[in-house]
Amino acid sequence: MVLTKKSTIKKYAKLIVRVGANVQKGQTVQVYADVDQAEFAALVVDEAYKAGAKKVNVEWGCDSITKLNYRHASVKTLSTILPWQEEKMKWQSEELPARIMIESSDPDGLKGINMEKMQKASRARYKISKPYSEKMENRHQWTIAAVPGEAWAKKVFPGLRKSQAMEKLWQAILETVYVTDDNDPIEVWNQVNEDFKTKCAKLNAYHFERLEYKSSNGTDFKVWMMPKGRWCGGGETDLNGRYFNPNMPTIEVFTTPEKGKAEGKVVSTKPLSYQGQLIENFWFEFKDGKVVDFGAEKDKDKELIEKMVTMDEGASMIGEVALVPCESPINKQNILYYNTLFDENASCHIALGRGFNDCVEGFEDLKKEDFDAMGVNDSMIHVDFMVGAPDLSIVGYTHEGKAVQIFENGNFTAEFN
Amino acid sequence: MVLTKKSTIKKYAKLIVRVGANVQKGQTVQVYADVDQAEFAALVVDEAYKAGAKKVNVEWGCDSITKLNYRHASVKTLSTILPWQEEKMKWQSEELPARIMIESSDPDGLKGINMEKMQKASRARYKISKPYSEKMENRHQWTIAAVPGEAWAKKVFPGLRKSQAMEKLWQAILETVYVTDDNDPIEVWNQVNEDFKTKCAKLNAYHFERLEYKSSNGTDFKVWMMPKGRWCGGGETDLNGRYFNPNMPTIEVFTTPEKGKAEGKVVSTKPLSYQGQLIENFWFEFKDGKVVDFGAEKDKDKELIEKMVTMDEGASMIGEVALVPCESPINKQNILYYNTLFDENASCHIALGRGFNDCVEGFEDLKKEDFDAMGVNDSMIHVDFMVGAPDLSIVGYTHEGKAVQIFENGNFTAEFN
Repeated sequence: MVLTKKSTIKKYAKLIVRVGANVQKGQTVQVYADVDQAEFAALVVDEAYKAGAKKVNVEWGCDSITKLNYRHASVKTLSTILPWQEEKMKWQSEELPARIMIESSDPDGLKGINMEKMQKASRARYKISKPYSEKMENRHQWTIAAVPGEAWAKKVFPGLRKSQAMEKLWQAILETVYVTDDNDPIEVWNQVNEDFKTKCAKLNAYHFERLEYKSSNGTDFKVWMMPKGRWCGGGETDLNGRYFNPNMPTIEVFTTPEKGKAEGKVVSTKPLSYQGQLIENFWFEFKDGKVVDFGAEKDKDKELIEKMVTMDEGASMIGEVALVPCESPINKQNILYYNTLFDENASCHIALGRGFNDCVEGFEDLKKEDFDAMGVNDSMIHVDFMVGAPDLSIVGYTHEGKAVQIFENGNFTAEFN
Repeated sequence: MVLTKKSTIKKYAKLIVRVGANVQKGQTVQVYADVDQAEFAALVVDEAYKAGAKKVNVEWGCDSITKLNYRHASVKTLSTILPWQEEKMKWQSEELPARIMIESSDPDGLKGINMEKMQKASRARYKISKPYSEKMENRHQWTIAAVPGEAWAKKVFPGLRKSQAMEKLWQAILETVYVTDDNDPIEVWNQVNEDFKTKCAKLNAYHFERLEYKSSNGTDFKVWMMPKGRWCGGGETDLNGRYFNPNMPTIEVFTTPEKGKAEGKVVSTKPLSYQGQLIENFWFEFKDGKVVDFGAEKDKDKELIEKMVTMDEGASMIGEVALVPCESPINKQNILYYNTLFDENASCHIALGRGFNDCVEGFEDLKKEDFDAMGVNDSMIHVDFMVGAPDLSIVGYTHEGKAVQIFENGNFTAEFN
């Protein structure tokens, strides 16, 4: 068994702070971590201070207690945002701290929760929190990265003992973020981000009108692009000019398609962990950009999907399409992580719910009304599900009617590689 | 090795909720726990909901991150209470949640911290938080209880392996709070609280003018009582009529003496864990109720004491004297817990700093000015140190000049037993 070196883990913490969140001198930093990750969180906090942070606050999560709250407290109580909590959102939307989310949870960690209750409460709270989130959008750096939690590791490697599973998950995660014992991962990330720019430039040059997906598993799907849409990938620049990497790892190039314009069927190719519960083997049928039918192998999964797509109006419409080749190094690991951060980078995927304003050219000078008018979907959810298949073909059609093969047999064609 | 049963630990969680905090139907509950205590915290949360709590919030602590904050953030940043944080204090002072503090920290957990910085920041924050704490005083239920943390267990039982030390500390703690595999500890606590009432009534009947302490280790000390002072012990009743037990375990009977009236020397008999650092073998000399001299075997400890007694004006004056016999079951365990919650119940002790308003007869109808006038000391600190010795004698003198032997050879005389 390889033992992950402490120095390597420390290097990863530094990477998250410097390349992920790109913490600035004098900035406040918010770290979100599960209570079982105190050791790694402390490394991140230390690195954030070394990067010059003014103050680093850690907010702890604990699934078992979240479950108890949803089991016992009333919908009314769970829906409440207290005045001090709203005051905190306000502070955050003005302070614009760099935010670092450290994921490690059990993909099944919230199994058994009353979804309806959770949904009602989330919906109520979202009404209050939304203006503050909107105020922060594209104005601060944030990053999501992962470290192994015990239950998660056992879920990914059920055949191994706990300590072995943890080690193996560490090795797998570090591989996806290009951290080795000897290298400088910051240099690697800089190079990878250059490659993303090249790939996006190629795709953007075509100004595709629509994409057509086909694979033998039943996927037969068309989706239309926004006239001013653009492909993104890798790092982003916030409106204060700070370059950051929202996801570690990241392989995908993605865009937000035009709301209300999608037709046909997409069939999932990997399980989806949605709010701490797994959904497997499901499909969606779209008409006029909306989910008009769906199914799943298991009834309980179909019920979960029902809850998901009815969260709000935008929850049944598309916010993102993303391209990830089968030969993605994460897919080649052949590990099912049960975690979107990884699994979405092993497969082409589509997200229901909220789109990304920064997938619009010139987004820097636009307002909420402009994004609505252009067709950026709005929702309280954003849920990615995987549709990549070994024989997936994606053809882009330009406004002039030219067909361009983007994906063939699950991978980018040579032109886009 | 005895293995503590899960059902026994669950019973302890219930005891904390029902007898410690006495959580009421419809009440909000705040639980404070270290991040490594998620499992026990979940038991407490569950029991609080079963007792009818409306909402249970857990606030997590983590010494390693507290240390990083004190190392890297500026005094100015550490002194700041943000508007939302003050709004939260305000909410708490109006909501009056039941508060449950679960202790498990390493007694040395904050070793190496810059005390001066911590002190300056605490002082600044206290100015803002004080009115809110005062508003809550005697108006809500609270309790402090403990569970083993790994570092703490290893400190208490350095010769044992980690898992053994944890087990042994579990057994020791459960013994102090009268929880066994088979009993109903709630019944035991009800009886113990009756015994406290009897003992306090006996002491209060004398209306002592002063106490005189003497033991061969150098303690030779006089301290004067408030004319309206009273002895307390065991459970308390808040101003809303809710009976609760602030400390689990508790053996002490205690009172707040009159500010400014103490003379002579007291010599410590056990180490003191002060803000995550240990102070050993020290003494204080009092004149006119104030510390006028002090010493410690080690220079670093003397420095810590210097910082402690200069926190504010009241930090060098006495807020509490407490009587605990050598034959206290906790003292008989012969375990040094390095934690005041336990060690103060193994030995007579004295506290520097804040006194207790509810140690005044008729406190329910009095105001801050009244307590000040009567001689209840005020300070941001309240630090108990142990002075119990095997040959300790304590004589109470009544206003009529009658001498009453309260303690002889470290134990209550028959009259008070």
